Amino acid sequence: GVKKNIGVLPGDGIGPEVTREAVKVLNAIAEKHGHTFEYNYGDVGAIAIDKTGNPLPDETLAVCEASDAFLFGAIGHPKYDNDPSAKVRPEQGLLKLRKSLGLFANVRPVTAYDSLLHMSPLKTERVRGADFVVYRELTGGIYFGEKGRTEDGAYDNCTYSNYEIDRIAHLAFQAAQNRNKKLMLVDKANVLETSRLWRERVTAIAKEYPDVALEAMFVDNAAMQMIQNPKQFDVILTENMFGDIISDEASVIGGSLGLLPSASVGEKSAMFEPIHGSYPQGAGKNIANPLATILSAAMMLDHLGLIDEAIEVRQAVNASLRNGMVTEDLTKENPVGTDRVGDFIANHI
Amino acid sequence: GVKKNIGVLPGDGIGPEVTREAVKVLNAIAEKHGHTFEYNYGDVGAIAIDKTGNPLPDETLAVCEASDAFLFGAIGHPKYDNDPSAKVRPEQGLLKLRKSLGLFANVRPVTAYDSLLHMSPLKTERVRGADFVVYRELTGGIYFGEKGRTEDGAYDNCTYSNYEIDRIAHLAFQAAQNRNKKLMLVDKANVLETSRLWRERVTAIAKEYPDVALEAMFVDNAAMQMIQNPKQFDVILTENMFGDIISDEASVIGGSLGLLPSASVGEKSAMFEPIHGSYPQGAGKNIANPLATILSAAMMLDHLGLIDEAIEVRQAVNASLRNGMVTEDLTKENPVGTDRVGDFIANHI
Ligand SMILES: CC(C)[C@H](C(=O)O)[C@@H](O)C(=O)O
Ligand SMILES: CC(C)[C@H](C(=O)O)[C@@H](O)C(=O)O
Repeated sequence: GVKKNIGVLPGDGIGPEVTREAVKVLNAIAEKHGHTFEYNYGDVGAIAIDKTGNPLPDETLAVCEASDAFLFGAIGHPKYDNDPSAKVRPEQGLLKLRKSLGLFANVRPVTAYDSLLHMSPLKTERVRGADFVVYRELTGGIYFGEKGRTEDGAYDNCTYSNYEIDRIAHLAFQAAQNRNKKLMLVDKANVLETSRLWRERVTAIAKEYPDVALEAMFVDNAAMQMIQNPKQFDVILTENMFGDIISDEASVIGGSLGLLPSASVGEKSAMFEPIHGSYPQGAGKNIANPLATILSAAMMLDHLGLIDEAIEVRQAVNASLRNGMVTEDLTKENPVGTDRVGDFIANHI
Repeated sequence: GVKKNIGVLPGDGIGPEVTREAVKVLNAIAEKHGHTFEYNYGDVGAIAIDKTGNPLPDETLAVCEASDAFLFGAIGHPKYDNDPSAKVRPEQGLLKLRKSLGLFANVRPVTAYDSLLHMSPLKTERVRGADFVVYRELTGGIYFGEKGRTEDGAYDNCTYSNYEIDRIAHLAFQAAQNRNKKLMLVDKANVLETSRLWRERVTAIAKEYPDVALEAMFVDNAAMQMIQNPKQFDVILTENMFGDIISDEASVIGGSLGLLPSASVGEKSAMFEPIHGSYPQGAGKNIANPLATILSAAMMLDHLGLIDEAIEVRQAVNASLRNGMVTEDLTKENPVGTDRVGDFIANHI
């Protein structure tokens, strides 16, 4: 067995409940395979603001830095919803985490599960079989450029360096090599200079991956194609802001946000996080769907090199879907609680 | 009758065919109501580059400036598709037109026609009855900010002034007053300073329109909601880049791009344009759907104060849909040619 140091940042709302189930599943994996997973916890988001005034306290950052990988639940509380210009906000914890740890690649697999297609807003034939992954650049672009006010206005600067583009491009090409060998760059190269740079760099890097077919699509067209024909995509590569929009759009086509995991990988550590938010109305009721977080833990196992273990987790998740051992967001007949979904999956390991 | 000076910029691909039918319908309106419409033509896009080396020749700009309003077909040719960084491109004609004429508000109504819902990628019950309009700011933001290269990277600056925000906000509030009195501001105020300024300004202006309910949504969430529940929207207000993405996404939910018109209104003139592109593969075949351009002409009539005439055009379009007098993109049984759709509608005026 191996020894790994795993950070856990439960965060707000349903975050603590869903991360608890993911830890339960990780414990089952550790026990079966003789691994030692040591967990260290940290506060982030609204709960961290409440306790310390800071959405990302230094101790939490230290937990993440010391970890081989960490789980992140969710952040956000309704009391912050109405004032996006407030000085201290939960999201700042997330943005600072990404930047401080250099988590430059946000990886979001989108899988249309057959058993959930009846819940998709898209017609079944359009979405059945859709299976792709979005590589979103996460620490550059307009999110982190200089921003401020002028006398009669405001500005946000978007910058990208060659280096920032190249490093995520390589990851995306490698992902395509392990999948269906298609890479779609999403940009706005007919208008933006940064997008033209993305095109140039990614086109040049493509020469190193002759087995991958590179195409490019303008972001407005990509937003249409995502609905018209999501099956055309294999790996999507894009910059920070476009990735935010396109990956959120993509996340609803399969029928449930409750199953979508993500990874944010970088220089110093790697973070694993469900796509869904903190869903405060559902907190404390044992109704939150833990599958996205459990599947994020599976991505973490992959990242830690525990490939077989990751497969076992995914198989156990599929068993819970097949057996209808799911929360109320996925079924009207006999839903079970958050904890029982986790128990079922842990017992199936 | 009134006398109006109408510019016509047919552009590329199917542009000339669809604008021809719109002019046919405008002529029928003029004849019936005793109006005098004088048409002046100008080249724009790839055809203008071919003829003059310039995607927007000065003569074309003069045609637009002298017009009370003008029709725009479409621009784009496949020979420009593979090099978005080419120095001369058709899109530049469009961007320069918007900026030179101060066409600051792009207005895109989205209507889900019952008879086309079988063609929508969305499940019928999700989209039936959807009816909203997007107000996209069109001459500011990252499209027109300073852009360039540095030694090892590139940048695009996004700026907005109070004035740029306020003038389109007023138009959007007024549109909401004439509709269902709901305005949704789409921004990314949790990250961008320009978005925070949009929130502040729009929230302040809302006080002048107490009958309109203002809400705000982050752009990533809006991209999801557009698919999950498009019926929730009435008027959407957003900045240039977000508007590009969200309005293109919105344009496919109804089942056909071929019916969606747009207006770009401004200080010196107003432009009316179908949402669809130049569709070069369909050019010269008499198969292009002219309805979006004819409905754009209806928006032009509204703009010129000819409200009853605009209604007549829309009624005639509905008659063509009811009678199956439509092009092959809308029906498999007995489609008719572009020219016959225009004839039918002109005869119904
Ligand atoms: C909360 C917000 C800052 C964040 C983002 O825009 O990156 C979120 O939308 C996401 O995609 O993780
Ligand atoms: C052609 C392009 C510059 C343009 C834009 O992005 O504004 C187009 O996508 C549109 O929406 O009219």
